[in-house]
Amino acid sequence: MYEPKAEHKFTFGLWTVGNPGRDPFGEPTRSKLAPAYIVKKLSELGAWGVNLHDNDLVPIDASAGERDRIVSEFKEALSDHGMVVPMATTNLFSDPSFKDGAFTSADARVRAYALQKTMNAIDLGVELGAKTYVFWGGREGSEVDASNNPLEGIKWFRECLNFLCEYVKDQGYDLKFALEPKPNEPRADIYLPTVGSALGFIATLDHSEMVGLNPEFAHETMAGLSFVHGVAQALDAGKLFHIDLNDQKMSRFDQDLRFGAENQKAAFFVVKLLEESAYGGPRHFDAHALRTEDEAGVWEFAKGCMRTYLILKEKVEVFNNDPEIKAALEAYKLSDAEIENLSKSYSSASAQSLKNRSFDREALGRRGPGLERLDQLTVEVLLGVR
Amino acid sequence: MYEPKAEHKFTFGLWTVGNPGRDPFGEPTRSKLAPAYIVKKLSELGAWGVNLHDNDLVPIDASAGERDRIVSEFKEALSDHGMVVPMATTNLFSDPSFKDGAFTSADARVRAYALQKTMNAIDLGVELGAKTYVFWGGREGSEVDASNNPLEGIKWFRECLNFLCEYVKDQGYDLKFALEPKPNEPRADIYLPTVGSALGFIATLDHSEMVGLNPEFAHETMAGLSFVHGVAQALDAGKLFHIDLNDQKMSRFDQDLRFGAENQKAAFFVVKLLEESAYGGPRHFDAHALRTEDEAGVWEFAKGCMRTYLILKEKVEVFNNDPEIKAALEAYKLSDAEIENLSKSYSSASAQSLKNRSFDREALGRRGPGLERLDQLTVEVLLGVR
Amino acid sequence: MYEPKAEHKFTFGLWTVGNPGRDPFGEPTRSKLAPAYIVKKLSELGAWGVNLHDNDLVPIDASAGERDRIVSEFKEALSDHGMVVPMATTNLFSDPSFKDGAFTSADARVRAYALQKTMNAIDLGVELGAKTYVFWGGREGSEVDASNNPLEGIKWFRECLNFLCEYVKDQGYDLKFALEPKPNEPRADIYLPTVGSALGFIATLDHSEMVGLNPEFAHETMAGLSFVHGVAQALDAGKLFHIDLNDQKMSRFDQDLRFGAENQKAAFFVVKLLEESAYGGPRHFDAHALRTEDEAGVWEFAKGCMRTYLILKEKVEVFNNDPEIKAALEAYKLSDAEIENLSKSYSSASAQSLKNRSFDREALGRRGPGLERLDQLTVEVLLGVR
Amino acid sequence: MYEPKAEHKFTFGLWTVGNPGRDPFGEPTRSKLAPAYIVKKLSELGAWGVNLHDNDLVPIDASAGERDRIVSEFKEALSDHGMVVPMATTNLFSDPSFKDGAFTSADARVRAYALQKTMNAIDLGVELGAKTYVFWGGREGSEVDASNNPLEGIKWFRECLNFLCEYVKDQGYDLKFALEPKPNEPRADIYLPTVGSALGFIATLDHSEMVGLNPEFAHETMAGLSFVHGVAQALDAGKLFHIDLNDQKMSRFDQDLRFGAENQKAAFFVVKLLEESAYGGPRHFDAHALRTEDEAGVWEFAKGCMRTYLILKEKVEVFNNDPEIKAALEAYKLSDAEIENLSKSYSSASAQSLKNRSFDREALGRRGPGLERLDQLTVEVLLGVR
Repeated sequence: MYEPKAEHKFTFGLWTVGNPGRDPFGEPTRSKLAPAYIVKKLSELGAWGVNLHDNDLVPIDASAGERDRIVSEFKEALSDHGMVVPMATTNLFSDPSFKDGAFTSADARVRAYALQKTMNAIDLGVELGAKTYVFWGGREGSEVDASNNPLEGIKWFRECLNFLCEYVKDQGYDLKFALEPKPNEPRADIYLPTVGSALGFIATLDHSEMVGLNPEFAHETMAGLSFVHGVAQALDAGKLFHIDLNDQKMSRFDQDLRFGAENQKAAFFVVKLLEESAYGGPRHFDAHALRTEDEAGVWEFAKGCMRTYLILKEKVEVFNNDPEIKAALEAYKLSDAEIENLSKSYSSASAQSLKNRSFDREALGRRGPGLERLDQLTVEVLLGVR
Repeated sequence: MYEPKAEHKFTFGLWTVGNPGRDPFGEPTRSKLAPAYIVKKLSELGAWGVNLHDNDLVPIDASAGERDRIVSEFKEALSDHGMVVPMATTNLFSDPSFKDGAFTSADARVRAYALQKTMNAIDLGVELGAKTYVFWGGREGSEVDASNNPLEGIKWFRECLNFLCEYVKDQGYDLKFALEPKPNEPRADIYLPTVGSALGFIATLDHSEMVGLNPEFAHETMAGLSFVHGVAQALDAGKLFHIDLNDQKMSRFDQDLRFGAENQKAAFFVVKLLEESAYGGPRHFDAHALRTEDEAGVWEFAKGCMRTYLILKEKVEVFNNDPEIKAALEAYKLSDAEIENLSKSYSSASAQSLKNRSFDREALGRRGPGLERLDQLTVEVLLGVR
Repeated sequence: MYEPKAEHKFTFGLWTVGNPGRDPFGEPTRSKLAPAYIVKKLSELGAWGVNLHDNDLVPIDASAGERDRIVSEFKEALSDHGMVVPMATTNLFSDPSFKDGAFTSADARVRAYALQKTMNAIDLGVELGAKTYVFWGGREGSEVDASNNPLEGIKWFRECLNFLCEYVKDQGYDLKFALEPKPNEPRADIYLPTVGSALGFIATLDHSEMVGLNPEFAHETMAGLSFVHGVAQALDAGKLFHIDLNDQKMSRFDQDLRFGAENQKAAFFVVKLLEESAYGGPRHFDAHALRTEDEAGVWEFAKGCMRTYLILKEKVEVFNNDPEIKAALEAYKLSDAEIENLSKSYSSASAQSLKNRSFDREALGRRGPGLERLDQLTVEVLLGVR
Repeated sequence: MYEPKAEHKFTFGLWTVGNPGRDPFGEPTRSKLAPAYIVKKLSELGAWGVNLHDNDLVPIDASAGERDRIVSEFKEALSDHGMVVPMATTNLFSDPSFKDGAFTSADARVRAYALQKTMNAIDLGVELGAKTYVFWGGREGSEVDASNNPLEGIKWFRECLNFLCEYVKDQGYDLKFALEPKPNEPRADIYLPTVGSALGFIATLDHSEMVGLNPEFAHETMAGLSFVHGVAQALDAGKLFHIDLNDQKMSRFDQDLRFGAENQKAAFFVVKLLEESAYGGPRHFDAHALRTEDEAGVWEFAKGCMRTYLILKEKVEVFNNDPEIKAALEAYKLSDAEIENLSKSYSSASAQSLKNRSFDREALGRRGPGLERLDQLTVEVLLGVR
């Protein structure tokens, strides 16, 4: 039971299980793991694929020859272990050249270099089979708003994305873009800080149909927002292209905890939303083992992410089949065909009809929706006592 | 100096200076003020107009006759004091009938009643001359996500907004809609929690051209987001239709403080953005005097909001004319015509050119942008020592 | 199973189940419930007692005769239903006279009135059998630090508490004081904002032995702090005199959710700490039903609080008896009698010995503590799959 | 004007201006600076002293000979430039051995090693002239509460501090300890998270008279708490032994911004509190230049910290001498000698007198304290328009 299989489409970034445990106040506690070794280990644990930044695999200063050798060895490892690379991305945040932004740097040369690096990384991703390309603009933001009209940042960002959309089309790649919003850290304020901001931005792009979202549990939670609602809005807009699962306490530094480690209830609703939606993509874990852990702890962490997902998936079934929950949900939702018909689509007549109608305001206010009970039933499903 | 005049377009809601000082833990500390009296006092202080919810002026259970009498007296007061009503809105949050949502209630009758109430309130707003209609969905959210697929809430919200857009067009009203996002309070999680979420949602509406934003300083700040960046994104999208100015400490309950009371630097950048943009609409203060205050304190509060805006507006001039700041900004931004030309608009050739180009990554990383100095200069402009 | 009984010492405030569902943006959604009715209902649900503010029972303007009649009827209700009043407190926050503080008001008359009101409320509490008197200084704080040297506020607070300690001793009452910290709301910043602040303040009182803590889950969580750690520090200092159980999302407005509704894991550790400590006092639920609910929802809410506590209490057993968890905990903690002996109590010799000792720093850093696995096992206990 | 001098007692940590600009998502952007060079540069800028962690000066694996040579050269630099070392501390957070705590590690050998390292660092600090020894327990906390009864952590922490107090006394050192609280980061929850927690903990120590506080602006602000109130409580308790000045947005990752960069008003009140209190110690800036900056930016940052302090110090004078502010403060505070006499110190008679007294509750509630006006005047002093 709770055994991860390829059909579950669980993926991890090379940078997640490969995280060496460095943080702002401390040196690495673990050795780096070779990409091929990660592929092998994850495959043994039941994962379906791995994702990567260009420099997770190919060092930033590798020669063309080195790059090709590394890529070819990595493809062999993928093939040996039956693993796929469904998503790829560019590291536009580690190198000092990006310290004040990549696509939004005030230095035109940095913006151009970021474009170059991304085109190369797109080529790499496509070569490895990726169908989704993620943009996490970790350095696209500011501490000093005097420096830079924030309007200019957004314009540069759009210019670059428009350019890259054209590049993908020009190359004939079968690739979609997914923006990954984050409110802050490492920058004081990152542009496009939330799922919603990214959706709003996409609406202004030349090829908005190619661009969607990669929402991350921890990032939305850092802004004190409901990740469940964020994912729902992305789904509603047809823009859930990828998803980053992990965990986090609200309104604090980026923790990237094991999926389900902190907010079991929110994790449950995310799994419910994914399993009941048309989203058929990867369940990507963008988290890492605690810095305290050795390599054994890293694999426990990876197993835990997948196992908790599957436990919660089972609970979705329990929830949906619980007769008391069913009854509570039915009682909660009050339909009225006649009235709903009036408001469904506008006509002068239906507007007038609605205006003339008399409502018993006090009765509407008195009705008890049964939400405390419904929530308690949910908690009991979560705690495994129903 | 710092004397508010009509040309500054300062407005207050009836509910702001009229706030009686009730809070979750305490009874009102001030008497209610009559709308006509508020109009007179604000006019004397130099405000340009007042905004209102339907029930700020007309009680929820007023008869048609009472309603007409109240409205006629109020119009007289406006005319007597040369005040306008640029914006109006509906109260869809105080009455118990809306306790579990208005446009997103699970009870179809509540949704219909909310539509009816809003059509009537739109009629009222238009009668008073309003050109902007604000939607703050205070109860559109949830505590119990089990109750309601959050997907359904967004759909109902859209259905209602589409209906109301048609209503406005059908009536031939010259009216635009402005959504006012808020992350939480009074609901645990409000749908469309941030400026970005509202922008993303607007893109899915039938008449998105009619619908824009009314961002509020406090609301964006409650989510720990930069209000300056939010306003910039709304401007970038051509969607800044109205603005709510006030103040707030991050990541806590809704404080609605006097504009500039807490975050002087952010307030300065907001004023700078507004004054330098094409936005020509009202500067609306959606705040209220502290509960400790008597009526005299209320008017000090109102004066303070406008006075601080004008002080900061003057500082925008100082900032823009400061030679050291000018030099710092010039040094900060590095253009390169040739390179910018390549990335401006895509062609296979320009992409290839960018790919072939060689960048001195280390030199790019070494460059000092001078941001600490620029920020210190800004702080000194703010503190009035430059 | 999970049936609450008197031995569990579950208590509710009259103001909790009696909360009428008013909030800053909306009118009450429920009728007030009579105190005697609350006593009866809670008793039927299995609660042990009720707690109260003076004005939950006796209106602020009641005559002495009315007061005595009300109290006598209430005592009868308690006796009829076998319920106790283990804790009482004063309402020093609702009335406008306390709008700028009670014990810390800048108006000497308000401070004196607060003392008078508290002495009377102490008399009332003792008459009803209370052994613990709680101080929640909801208005003891500020928005405007210019007004009041925050130093003065702390001094006035201490002066009042010292006075009241003497009053209790002088009357020969068997009563202890418990301070309830809260970071903000309704004031921008409340004095003594956290469990720690209250502990620090207690150390400066004349009769610090009489004064302890009443930590509240939601309040500590509002400051983004770990409630479990706060309770642990109070226990460590011998100062856990009472406890307020509820739930809350971090870093936002005061939600007072049903116990266990949001943070199941933190709730589990709180229950574990209480059940394994010497704390034998009430398990008080300082929460209220969602504003959406009718009276039926209120009793579901109350049942849910107690039921979840008992479910978690059972899980403490499961956790403690799980062999893999036991093994993980044993492996985690590494003792070394010789070394621990050196550091236990100081001597020049042991200090020298420690200084001379050679440590294998790298080996210490390499050791894997197994925390990811331990945490995953805990989550699985919580989810009921172990 | 605003020229820093030795008399202002401005200090910086070697680690602050020496920060190389590494963060969780990026590599260093600046070269390391030699301690002697830092001393020289800071001295030129007008600083009074430098503070250090043991390993800021002496590498963790230095031999005794290397250590002595480094220290002797550093003392020469201090003497050459007339700089002092008023405070020193131990790095108990960077090395992997401390990954799960130092004084609170579950591994007894780590606890012992932390004691050894701290005794050596105390010797070093004293040798350099330090009078204050700071304890920032960056790793003293947890992510996994299952691992470790939080009670045990506090006990181990106390055991270590008691031991180290004895060590200092035994050595005859003239040295006080100052605890520096922080709520989280790098650990999920750090023990003793706030100023108050540290005060509460100190009350449980064997030699509490030797131990006080080193509150940090950013740390208290991360918990959404008022730093001004925290410093006031430390002063009230006679425990302000040192202070860390910097800046920070609320409820997010540790930013360590330039003093006064973000919250000018809070910074003003902190300066006011320090200048008007008996605190005569260093004004220590525990901040660092933005990662975007080169070395020139670092020195601009350092100059800005000191310059803003001096500007705000001048504003304290302006505030105190402003006749309208004086009048507002006088009107705000209402004394009543007779009534204050009753509550000052307890007697049965005064208690009875207070109980018998009649208060005009409504009049107390009606009084307007003038806080909006006072706050606006303060803002105008800050903005330099008064």
